Amino acid sequence: MELLENKIRNEGRIYSGDVLKVDSFLNHQMDVDFLCRVGEEFHRLFADCDVNKILTIEASGIGVACLTAQFFHCPVLFAKKSKSSNISDKLWVSKVHSYTHNTDHNVIVSKSYLGPGDRVLIIDDFLAKGSAMLALIDLCEAAGATVVGAGAVIEKVYQGGGELVSRRGVRVESLARIASMNEVEGIRFC
Amino acid sequence: MELLENKIRNEGRIYSGDVLKVDSFLNHQMDVDFLCRVGEEFHRLFADCDVNKILTIEASGIGVACLTAQFFHCPVLFAKKSKSSNISDKLWVSKVHSYTHNTDHNVIVSKSYLGPGDRVLIIDDFLAKGSAMLALIDLCEAAGATVVGAGAVIEKVYQGGGELVSRRGVRVESLARIASMNEVEGIRFC
Repeated sequence: MELLENKIRNEGRIYSGDVLKVDSFLNHQMDVDFLCRVGEEFHRLFADCDVNKILTIEASGIGVACLTAQFFHCPVLFAKKSKSSNISDKLWVSKVHSYTHNTDHNVIVSKSYLGPGDRVLIIDDFLAKGSAMLALIDLCEAAGATVVGAGAVIEKVYQGGGELVSRRGVRVESLARIASMNEVEGIRFC
Repeated sequence: MELLENKIRNEGRIYSGDVLKVDSFLNHQMDVDFLCRVGEEFHRLFADCDVNKILTIEASGIGVACLTAQFFHCPVLFAKKSKSSNISDKLWVSKVHSYTHNTDHNVIVSKSYLGPGDRVLIIDDFLAKGSAMLALIDLCEAAGATVVGAGAVIEKVYQGGGELVSRRGVRVESLARIASMNEVEGIRFC
């Protein structure tokens, strides 16, 4: 999506430690008119997949997921991060590994809202090493739901998460695919 | 908003400890088509206020804020909860008291995205004792921004938060106003 690549080039800032800051339009301040175009693009890509639910993870996935869902006329379900190891029989639970903090935490969704009848599109703002997205796929598999695809606004392709998600048999569509980036040379898209 | 009151009557569940669960459509699963109607209603109420930014707080305010912002054609800024007491000079910081856990935590927004030129509409899913909304007003005051109003999807009027926000000179509009509720008699709207 050329519009998105231009926006990342113009507004994104690269910091040491492989950090791309896009908090002017994506994950702190959100450029809603622009993210509606992002949602339309996800709809164009997955329009023929009979999506009946969009699954995302709090917090920064929620905005894009909602603005996308209005084109599918389907609900959004967002997985909550849970520090407690309490596993209720009313919840689907899976584990996310945080590479930044080198810790694991659980993500949960209510069994009331995810089940075998669901055809799920997973939406998130970033796809890097894939740990959040793989955890969402685990939740769907536990629930017996069908994952019809996964959409990320920005994928850091060189971190390998997209490859891991694809290997699980899930179609991945990322609207901007970063091949490499650093503070000197800037961003190279695939 | 009659449509919303009906939805709360039909789908809301009341639990002991003054808990209203509306996680089928508002704060876990989100009925996006319905929440677009909610956003349209906020726009009708605040259309003449020259809103140029919507401010909310993670996580469950983000969806409603984004679906509302598209009618105003303005960005959303969401305050992040921060456990650290690190106060950077690049951040506006205020304190939220949690009555549930009897603890305080900070909420932060970047100074880059909130300043004197802003005319802010605050949007959140719930207004109860008002601690989150008052913290968002504090952020705006620190930044020198103008708060043109505050919109809540559901207000528990008997908990007094709406009154506290009004006393700060901020116009409050809640789309469903609960006068009382309990497990036996159900919900009474104002």
